[in-house]
Amino acid sequence: MEDSLLRFLSPDRCDIPGRLREAMEYSLTSGGKRIRPVLLLSAGGAVGGDEKEMLPFACAVEYIHTYSLIHDDLPAMDDDDFRRGQPSCHKAFGEAEAILAGDALLTEAFRVMGESRIAERDPGSAVRAMAMLARASGACGMAGGQMMDLRPPGDGVSPAAEEIALRKTAALLSAAAGMGGVLGGCDEPRVESLARYGRTLGILFQLVDDILDETGSFEEMGKRVGKDPGRGKVTCVSEMGMEAAVRKSEELGREAIAALSLFGPEADTLRGIVRLVAVRRS
Amino acid sequence: MEDSLLRFLSPDRCDIPGRLREAMEYSLTSGGKRIRPVLLLSAGGAVGGDEKEMLPFACAVEYIHTYSLIHDDLPAMDDDDFRRGQPSCHKAFGEAEAILAGDALLTEAFRVMGESRIAERDPGSAVRAMAMLARASGACGMAGGQMMDLRPPGDGVSPAAEEIALRKTAALLSAAAGMGGVLGGCDEPRVESLARYGRTLGILFQLVDDILDETGSFEEMGKRVGKDPGRGKVTCVSEMGMEAAVRKSEELGREAIAALSLFGPEADTLRGIVRLVAVRRS
Repeated sequence: MEDSLLRFLSPDRCDIPGRLREAMEYSLTSGGKRIRPVLLLSAGGAVGGDEKEMLPFACAVEYIHTYSLIHDDLPAMDDDDFRRGQPSCHKAFGEAEAILAGDALLTEAFRVMGESRIAERDPGSAVRAMAMLARASGACGMAGGQMMDLRPPGDGVSPAAEEIALRKTAALLSAAAGMGGVLGGCDEPRVESLARYGRTLGILFQLVDDILDETGSFEEMGKRVGKDPGRGKVTCVSEMGMEAAVRKSEELGREAIAALSLFGPEADTLRGIVRLVAVRRS
Repeated sequence: MEDSLLRFLSPDRCDIPGRLREAMEYSLTSGGKRIRPVLLLSAGGAVGGDEKEMLPFACAVEYIHTYSLIHDDLPAMDDDDFRRGQPSCHKAFGEAEAILAGDALLTEAFRVMGESRIAERDPGSAVRAMAMLARASGACGMAGGQMMDLRPPGDGVSPAAEEIALRKTAALLSAAAGMGGVLGGCDEPRVESLARYGRTLGILFQLVDDILDETGSFEEMGKRVGKDPGRGKVTCVSEMGMEAAVRKSEELGREAIAALSLFGPEADTLRGIVRLVAVRRS
């Protein structure tokens, strides 16, 4: 997986100007948890997909996640100088470079999927997976969620934290799991189950993030903590209080597991991911 | 075409938060020449493609072009307050909004293609067209070209103006024409001819832009003129002088026409576009 992230962008496949390549690779290799590609490969694996063939799609999802972090950190957006304990992309390379590195990663995601072996062998599944990823990360998904997140409260009615989490985080995790199902060639009810599982996991993921943001330290999180309440942003924790948030996280974990009821032991990896997300400390 | 640009983003297809939608629609409807979608539809039409079915792909190319203008105008990039005689997107809506509107238009381009009728009926052609567009606009194409354009001269060896034009402008025009060929279902030599035609037209287009930038006025261009030499950027005109640039533009026009030698009268629209680009005044 780590190798593949750089391999699909290697000079023999894509002649990228040096400084742009450096900025892209810097952010790609700064130690992400890779939960989205792992989710895609685990979901695809659970329904018999070939891991090697699905790799371009798994990497594409991580490219999109990485681009979103780069752009979210920009001064005009969340203005974060650190990401995963390192200078964020615009601090290390400059603002123009960071904007372009994000744009390029987002675009290359679609090139890598479109030039994959699955795109040749089974273009119907490839194009469907590509459309799912675009819908999840575009204006009604992740980018739309970031817009809602940036709008200051008090400017009309603030959207609920869960609505933002659904778009900003859960849509992409849902797409990753559903794409695995599509690429693995499973039937429609199972694709929908996987997408529901991913969506629930995504809300859980964001909720745990909010809880850690209140209780964690800089060392654990690798970025500034406690900033969201200070900046007036709505989080699940600020909306419902810590105790209810922890209870809600347990409930979401059970829901995510329940979404996998159509599957047997072949989905045990996916069940394990729920526990990992629920108890993670960073 | 104008209707379709907004229709594929309409609320029944895509639930976009209000402010993000406004910023996207503002830039989409600010009076572009639509040369890229016209090119795609004309190339596709020349080889028997169905115009209505190709519309999502034509709009996708325009979304990508529009996103690139929005991001290029940002303060961290070319820092332009005006575009087509109107305040640029970040002046009208704010910087975060402009970054997100660009991101969203880029992403929606792939959603609209991936959810098209051609993607259902002929996914092989759809996925190939999507990959062509991604390659042309990504790190080794348009985004890479913008990176090279931004790098100040003197910082090592400046890339030649034509190399930048090839990536920043010609790659996307080449993809538009080639995509038309793929979607119209023509044979490989014709797809390659169309792509070569589009690439030559793209270099011509950029050259005419550089010539107008030296000689045009604000009213004709709808943006600041004469700024590129002042900012130290390399242009074809600054490299070779005005007289040679005009001669080169005539040569490129002949080359673009010659690239269509496999085609008969069915490509007359494409030949007409060469003349329109060569003599345009804005």
